[in-house]
Amino acid sequence: MRDVAIIGVSQTKFGELWEASLRQLIAEAGLSAIEDANIQGDDIGAMYVGNMTAGLFIQQEHIASLIADHTGLNPIPCTRVEAACASGGLALRQGIMAVASGYHDIVISAGVEKMTDVVDPTPAIATASDQEWEAKVGATFPSLYAMMARRHMYEYGTTREQLAMFSVINHENGSKNPRAQFPFKITVDQVLNSSKVADPLRLLDCSPVTDGAAAIVLAPAEEAHKYSDTPIYVKASAQASGTIALHDRQDITTIDSTKIAAKKAYEMADLTSEDIDTVEVHDCFSINGILAIEDLGFVEKGEGGKAIEEGMTQNGGKIPVNPSGGLKSRGHPLGATGIAQTAEIVWQLRGEAGKRQVEGAEIGMTHNIGGTGGTAAIHILSR
Amino acid sequence: MRDVAIIGVSQTKFGELWEASLRQLIAEAGLSAIEDANIQGDDIGAMYVGNMTAGLFIQQEHIASLIADHTGLNPIPCTRVEAACASGGLALRQGIMAVASGYHDIVISAGVEKMTDVVDPTPAIATASDQEWEAKVGATFPSLYAMMARRHMYEYGTTREQLAMFSVINHENGSKNPRAQFPFKITVDQVLNSSKVADPLRLLDCSPVTDGAAAIVLAPAEEAHKYSDTPIYVKASAQASGTIALHDRQDITTIDSTKIAAKKAYEMADLTSEDIDTVEVHDCFSINGILAIEDLGFVEKGEGGKAIEEGMTQNGGKIPVNPSGGLKSRGHPLGATGIAQTAEIVWQLRGEAGKRQVEGAEIGMTHNIGGTGGTAAIHILSR
Repeated sequence: MRDVAIIGVSQTKFGELWEASLRQLIAEAGLSAIEDANIQGDDIGAMYVGNMTAGLFIQQEHIASLIADHTGLNPIPCTRVEAACASGGLALRQGIMAVASGYHDIVISAGVEKMTDVVDPTPAIATASDQEWEAKVGATFPSLYAMMARRHMYEYGTTREQLAMFSVINHENGSKNPRAQFPFKITVDQVLNSSKVADPLRLLDCSPVTDGAAAIVLAPAEEAHKYSDTPIYVKASAQASGTIALHDRQDITTIDSTKIAAKKAYEMADLTSEDIDTVEVHDCFSINGILAIEDLGFVEKGEGGKAIEEGMTQNGGKIPVNPSGGLKSRGHPLGATGIAQTAEIVWQLRGEAGKRQVEGAEIGMTHNIGGTGGTAAIHILSR
Repeated sequence: MRDVAIIGVSQTKFGELWEASLRQLIAEAGLSAIEDANIQGDDIGAMYVGNMTAGLFIQQEHIASLIADHTGLNPIPCTRVEAACASGGLALRQGIMAVASGYHDIVISAGVEKMTDVVDPTPAIATASDQEWEAKVGATFPSLYAMMARRHMYEYGTTREQLAMFSVINHENGSKNPRAQFPFKITVDQVLNSSKVADPLRLLDCSPVTDGAAAIVLAPAEEAHKYSDTPIYVKASAQASGTIALHDRQDITTIDSTKIAAKKAYEMADLTSEDIDTVEVHDCFSINGILAIEDLGFVEKGEGGKAIEEGMTQNGGKIPVNPSGGLKSRGHPLGATGIAQTAEIVWQLRGEAGKRQVEGAEIGMTHNIGGTGGTAAIHILSR
């Protein structure tokens, strides 16, 4: 198995991008990543694209073909990978395998979602849950995560304010990220007084509806210095499946797929949570940020809320979480998120993150999940 | 790069399976393949599933998670791959890379589509074309392939009867396939008198709407004999992209992605078209079967119709095409087709194809395309 490095990254501005179509967004991200990697189109051996549901958002499947075509990269093989909101993480993982196997040398793993071309994205997003047993009986994603939040509060005394603080810290970080959808600060009071979505979750606990794309260029590690002075190495790529429906779990305050994928990732990298300098977690809702830092092993189960309150996850704290602003502030274009997380960690490890730089970051992690945890993809990267 | 072998295959009955849901179909195929490979669930390292558009057919994305869950295989990583009707071929290719890279040992590559839960599947199928420039202005897949057929007739003198003969030979083969959707013979007259769909294509030139699933078990070649007395080896796995829209092509009587992927596959296997004993081609419409045998190099461009007429592609002919019955007679559950083609070639190379056996077949090929050729996946297998 060949070792793999990241030699280029990019992310479009995230937001409600009315003027941009899916094909324009992915082309912008792809071309920026190619420039960042100092390669030409001819160097590319294959492409992977994470996308959750262009079929439902813009009535377009077969987007890998569309993308190879629209970017002028035919006949390069291009493959779409889908695992709901973990689509980007899995597109990265497939790209890594394509290089590791020797099938291809230079590979682009990208992600894109165009969410604002429908009046109500909720039914499309709900297709990440169990349609027959959850969505069809009225469960939406906010309602599913609300149940997880309520139970975490009951079991561990997690407070409404602690949930709010996760969003506040995200926005503090995101206020320094020019690519973020909402690059401004918010307060705990603003979260607590924002409109109810699914009790106890309020609007400012929820990641937004976002258009955007991101891309990453992979190369064999041994050749990475030919292209980049600051290649970032893939130390681990791990994936696990969990029950798609929430009601099938023993415990809804733990996401097993995160725990299992994290364990595999730490083993693969021969590292522990203590070695991680910064992490991008999948905070589609504030509660999921708290579950993530517990299930990734940064704190004991049930201690997540307290850790947030004590500042452990702030930039400068013991384990800076979501220096980019996370899904809440940077935005959450479903299939692009796993790639955007990876781009952020690469910028952090290169020391190119500007005002949001985590000082001295040498090892970083990304945590990308689909649905309520039916899929988890975890990557560990190092300088 | 590790060599890869196929140690187990399966296919459900194809048809309008009103009593079976997507999760039931894929579970049936997966369990049969596991039995065929003499493995246990615990042996499986990862799964890939080809599916075109469960989002539009059954309002369910994230089907990889659903499948891992419903088959009791959590937390095994499961990933959906989509490239319209080539989804199955790419799921196979990703599975091959997962084994070749050393990331996983035993991998299942499967495909599934549940098409009959919507009143009209046409708009969902049309999402494989360019939505903005083809589907939205009224182009359907029969109409796109009708233009390709018309031009082929104009350029090369291909006759309406030759197109019909492709369907007739498919049904001759499919009449011997118990898993086929339409296991009966048809005549040229029946094709010519069937209802017009898009002139010159008639109903019996068109592959049907089908529910079904298929699965394949992959293993490192060096370990294959631990599981199977008749492992089948992957000699080549190639993929290419072409323009998604028909109007962007220099020549609509050639599918460039097929030609390019075939060239790569022959190089990878160090073989020529002369070495192939039997092939499963992607005859979503009769014209595409003719284009395929030309673009794969079995006959010169323009000679496909004549070759059909002369019996070259019949079982017993120079290059038996679609011994399974092909998409026309076996059925075409979009995401499952690439895997079902592979299962058929494995049965042929094992000598287990019963009454439709191609005598002495040692090397076989599969040809799976998405849309009108936006994606092509080609595999060469050998005993």
